[in-house]
Amino acid sequence: MRETWVVGAASNRFGKMKESGREAATRVAMEAILQSGLAPKDIGYTFVSNAFGISEHQGHIGPLINNGLGIPGVPSATIESACSSSSAALHEAFVHVAGGFLDAALVVGVEKLSHLDTLAATSYFAVGADYPFEAKNGATFPGLYATLASAYRHAYSTKDEMFGAIALKNHANAARNPHAHFQKEISMETYLGSPMIASPLRLYDCCPFSDGAAAVVVAAKEFMTRPVTEPLVIRASARAGSVTDMQDRPDLLGLPSARLAAEKAFRQAKMSPKEIDFLEVHDCFTIAEALALEDLGFFPRGTAAQESLEGVTARDAKLPVNPSGGLKAKGHPVSATGASQVVEVFEQMNGLAKGREVPKAETALTHNVGATGGSCSVHIFSRR
Amino acid sequence: MRETWVVGAASNRFGKMKESGREAATRVAMEAILQSGLAPKDIGYTFVSNAFGISEHQGHIGPLINNGLGIPGVPSATIESACSSSSAALHEAFVHVAGGFLDAALVVGVEKLSHLDTLAATSYFAVGADYPFEAKNGATFPGLYATLASAYRHAYSTKDEMFGAIALKNHANAARNPHAHFQKEISMETYLGSPMIASPLRLYDCCPFSDGAAAVVVAAKEFMTRPVTEPLVIRASARAGSVTDMQDRPDLLGLPSARLAAEKAFRQAKMSPKEIDFLEVHDCFTIAEALALEDLGFFPRGTAAQESLEGVTARDAKLPVNPSGGLKAKGHPVSATGASQVVEVFEQMNGLAKGREVPKAETALTHNVGATGGSCSVHIFSRR
Repeated sequence: MRETWVVGAASNRFGKMKESGREAATRVAMEAILQSGLAPKDIGYTFVSNAFGISEHQGHIGPLINNGLGIPGVPSATIESACSSSSAALHEAFVHVAGGFLDAALVVGVEKLSHLDTLAATSYFAVGADYPFEAKNGATFPGLYATLASAYRHAYSTKDEMFGAIALKNHANAARNPHAHFQKEISMETYLGSPMIASPLRLYDCCPFSDGAAAVVVAAKEFMTRPVTEPLVIRASARAGSVTDMQDRPDLLGLPSARLAAEKAFRQAKMSPKEIDFLEVHDCFTIAEALALEDLGFFPRGTAAQESLEGVTARDAKLPVNPSGGLKAKGHPVSATGASQVVEVFEQMNGLAKGREVPKAETALTHNVGATGGSCSVHIFSRR
Repeated sequence: MRETWVVGAASNRFGKMKESGREAATRVAMEAILQSGLAPKDIGYTFVSNAFGISEHQGHIGPLINNGLGIPGVPSATIESACSSSSAALHEAFVHVAGGFLDAALVVGVEKLSHLDTLAATSYFAVGADYPFEAKNGATFPGLYATLASAYRHAYSTKDEMFGAIALKNHANAARNPHAHFQKEISMETYLGSPMIASPLRLYDCCPFSDGAAAVVVAAKEFMTRPVTEPLVIRASARAGSVTDMQDRPDLLGLPSARLAAEKAFRQAKMSPKEIDFLEVHDCFTIAEALALEDLGFFPRGTAAQESLEGVTARDAKLPVNPSGGLKAKGHPVSATGASQVVEVFEQMNGLAKGREVPKAETALTHNVGATGGSCSVHIFSRR
């Protein structure tokens, strides 16, 4: 297996895009390629994610992006795995390059939903759930994650402020991230006073609907004779699945796919959680960040929410979690989210995270969940 | 690179499915796995294609299929490349297995459209085109392929009967294929008398909307210590892209992506067209079969339609093309089509194509096109 690097990464500002998904995707893809010092002609395959492109009447978006980049002959495919789509795409790029099938590949995730009303957007999101058993009966994601939050609160007698601390921390980080949808801090008072969406989840427990695009260029070490950026070495690229429906799971105090993917990833990287400097995790709801930290092995079960309240996961603390602001405050343009987590790692390791630097950025882990954990991807990166 | 095989392949009967896409996909996936002699637990990754699953309110279908197979922990991703989706999924499976990342992978393509009316189904298909430039202006696939047919007829002064011959041959083959949507022969009179859909394409020049599911199991030679089927050795798995819009192409007498993918595939396999015993090609319209045979290098430009009229591509002739009946008559359940072509090759090489055997089945090629050629996959198979 060849050593494989991330050599470029770019994102637009999440929020509301005026341009179409294909235009945004092409633009950030070109930025990521230019940043890597490669030319579009060096790209051997384009892996796109755009789960809800059909809402823009556009499927088969890869060839359109490649046309825009001036590389029409390059093959492409669209990779979907609900909210973990672009980390699944990154996994494909990794396998192609590490396996020696390609020297360089492009990963680009994009989503545009702002042309839809909230009900329509929620319906699109809900296709990630099990339709006949969940979505059809009204169990969309806020309700499903509320179930996980209820189980956690019941098991560990947590306080509202613990989840509030996660929201506050991610908003504080996003306030320093020019790519973020919400660039403002919130107070505990604002959090506690925000309306209940699906009990016990309040408005500020939930990530927003965001438009956005993010791109990553993956290349073999041996192909990058003169890297112009500080490359991220991909130490692990692991994915796993899980029983999808909650009624079929042995417990609700974590996501089985995340535990399994983390186990694989640490084994692949020959590393342990102690060796990770900072994390980008999938905090579609605040409860998801707490579960992630436990599933990944950073905190014992039932303690992550408490640790968050104590500030351990703050940007400048011992274990910075979501220095980008996370899905919660940076935003969650579904198919762009996984790639966007890698953009944050890239910016941190390349000194591009101005004003939101973590204390140490030698190693990092990204964790990206599909739906309520039917899929999960975990990637581990380090400097050379 | 490890020698990689297709060790199982299954399909339902194309046409109208009563069950949902996920149910059909799970059923054929299990059939393909059982046929291979492997157990579901041997599968390391599931690559699904289901481009229009959203019409059934269902995305993220991989975990649901894996749940149904009893392997919830196995990772999955959905691969879309318009009508070439499941051949793109096969390419991923090939790369993972040949690269040594997995020992065995499942590819399953499924589409259900029969719950939609024709206008809605056409709109779904049209997302494979370039929306702002093509579909939005009414250029859906019958019109786009009619443009290709007009260019061909103009350049080579062909007769209606040449395209009729392609339709008749594929209907004759489908009449012997239990998986086929249309299991009846048609006469030249019927063909010539059928209504014009998009001049010069008549009704019988066009493939139908079909529901269907097809699955393929891919495994490393070294993993299959005791194969229970006659495996197909994957000699080549190649994909390419192309300028998408016709107004931007240098000529309309072929699909650039097909030429490029064929070139790559023959180079990879170290073979030439002369060494291929039979073909499954992407005949979404009769013109597409003629173009395919020329793009792949089996006939000089401008001659394939004439050769078809002369019977050269009949099932029992020199170069059998689409012994399954092709998209034209076997049917075209978009995301199942690429996998279904491999099912035909598998059945021919395993003596399972009862009553429609080709004279020689030592080697075969499959050609699967996305949209009007924005993507194309070419695979070459041989017996051990």
